[in-house]
Amino acid sequence: MTHAQHSIPARRGTATRLGAGEAIRIINTHGAQVVDTWAFSADDMGEFMSMEHIRPTLGRIFPTAGDALVSNRRRPILMFEEDTSPGRHDTLIAACDDYRYGLLGCTEYHDNCTDNLHAALRQLGLTSPETPSPLNLWMNIPVDADGRTSWGEPLSKPGDHVVLRAVMDCIVAMSACPQDILPINGAACVPTEAHFEIVGR
Amino acid sequence: MTHAQHSIPARRGTATRLGAGEAIRIINTHGAQVVDTWAFSADDMGEFMSMEHIRPTLGRIFPTAGDALVSNRRRPILMFEEDTSPGRHDTLIAACDDYRYGLLGCTEYHDNCTDNLHAALRQLGLTSPETPSPLNLWMNIPVDADGRTSWGEPLSKPGDHVVLRAVMDCIVAMSACPQDILPINGAACVPTEAHFEIVGR
Repeated sequence: MTHAQHSIPARRGTATRLGAGEAIRIINTHGAQVVDTWAFSADDMGEFMSMEHIRPTLGRIFPTAGDALVSNRRRPILMFEEDTSPGRHDTLIAACDDYRYGLLGCTEYHDNCTDNLHAALRQLGLTSPETPSPLNLWMNIPVDADGRTSWGEPLSKPGDHVVLRAVMDCIVAMSACPQDILPINGAACVPTEAHFEIVGR
Repeated sequence: MTHAQHSIPARRGTATRLGAGEAIRIINTHGAQVVDTWAFSADDMGEFMSMEHIRPTLGRIFPTAGDALVSNRRRPILMFEEDTSPGRHDTLIAACDDYRYGLLGCTEYHDNCTDNLHAALRQLGLTSPETPSPLNLWMNIPVDADGRTSWGEPLSKPGDHVVLRAVMDCIVAMSACPQDILPINGAACVPTEAHFEIVGR
């Protein structure tokens, strides 16, 4: 069975509704693109997938296929069902924002995942008062024994994908991260598009 | 110069206003008590100390004395000025909440840091729509090479303290964590009181 494929344009965000039991396949089309990912309960935008609640629930800072991804009310909201990549995804780093690029030396507005999230939600007629810390798919942030982090390049290859299945009716928002100063989207520092498909029950 | 010492009662929270340039000394009176700590801008409760923004700013998951602790707008809100303890504090773990204790097997209401935060803010006539991920002072969460976390005991000793200096007018809230099932407040699993002092310019 083939599924309609939708673009997450380079440097932009998008959001989609998922019914409980439906899944989303998020595809790293060109292989080195970080996709910041959020999930909100369809019944209450105040309940959302939460990195700081996922880490103690899993006892790990890196979620992997098979894990339940919990909300800020500690209920599973998404099941991390499949992962064809080496499975390194980040839970530690906030979504980039215009303040971040200012600190990196930008003097003009820079596309960013925080604004992409809120723009994507507006397209669905929704708003979120918060910017939850995202699940940064394919973002490779090694942590050394002293707790030092570094800005790695993704370990993924073109076409790698993850499948996330909705445990409750929810909204999934994604941003193809526009970071082009640090090498998190590959050594070339060129953000690219990614894709997603809705997969049935 | 001596300063008036205030209690953070065992299992409870409190909050205080700090003017820019003032500092707070938070004291681990009995040596093994985790104190969940938050800071909010006095001008806008929507701006607060943010763990997910601190980690990429510092390039470390463990803040130490000398570090600027930034807000979700990536501005320093507190300076981490002194630390007499071995300096292990946690940025990874959400504040405990009643959902958490339910998952740990409690069938009745359990005191928790999330409710303590909001109760402490109400005492100042304030509300926060969010429960930011706290700076968990003295909480010792080792992370191994595979990203696995464990529930360590504090490395601190009685009387250890930290000094946090306000960069902007702010509200600092603290909760003496009531966790008595996991050993984060020491092997005895007995939460105790802590203390704080306001230190002048």
